[in-house]
Amino acid sequence: MKKPTLDFIGILHGDIHSLDDAPKIHTESDQTGTLEIFPEYVEGLECIKPGQTIMVLFWLDRARRDTLKVYPRGDRSLGLHGVFATRSPNRPNPIAVSELKVLGMDGNRLRVQGLDILDGTPIVDIKKTLR
Amino acid sequence: MKKPTLDFIGILHGDIHSLDDAPKIHTESDQTGTLEIFPEYVEGLECIKPGQTIMVLFWLDRARRDTLKVYPRGDRSLGLHGVFATRSPNRPNPIAVSELKVLGMDGNRLRVQGLDILDGTPIVDIKKTLR
Repeated sequence: MKKPTLDFIGILHGDIHSLDDAPKIHTESDQTGTLEIFPEYVEGLECIKPGQTIMVLFWLDRARRDTLKVYPRGDRSLGLHGVFATRSPNRPNPIAVSELKVLGMDGNRLRVQGLDILDGTPIVDIKKTLR
Repeated sequence: MKKPTLDFIGILHGDIHSLDDAPKIHTESDQTGTLEIFPEYVEGLECIKPGQTIMVLFWLDRARRDTLKVYPRGDRSLGLHGVFATRSPNRPNPIAVSELKVLGMDGNRLRVQGLDILDGTPIVDIKKTLR
């Protein structure tokens, strides 16, 4: 089967500019930022409402794809884990799955809370959350 | 930025062979199946344990990528929604995010429960669940 290519649907504007700024555990983040959705995809946002939680998939363009073993959250005392047992950004297909609260919407811009993702990271998908 | 290409890390073997067989709401599924991880990625599975829940990302190779409006769960009474407000398989980057229970492991094969994904679907990532 041919390897698929991802199309970016938008880009994140946020306040996290380096991995040192990023919260280690995403569920503890109250960082806010803006999802800028590219004009050709804006129609797909219809029915998303402020106040709801959305699942957002990001392409971690600054992650390493050649890593299969990591120390979870950089903590060596935990020992090496397989990347698939962790949420490390470094993995063969560096896609992050975040659950973010929608604070507000203005055309193609969604103001969101709960970020642990670097400013400038491309967005590949938005979904209804599982629960 | 260059469009990234996904590398498949494995393939799903399951009992769902057509969209008519698939549960409409993933969280209600008790369908079991096997994640076959390709040999070059097996090292990344270390520390995954039977009994735990994992997040699995699938590439929905039979989905449509040119759809921005859908009827949620095929129900026309709900009206057209933007795809990003739904969990429709049809979307610009058709990546499914599933939470599956690990029933057992044997080398590169993980027996899992909770599937709503078609047999033969490629796997792109496995992660620790958010909660």
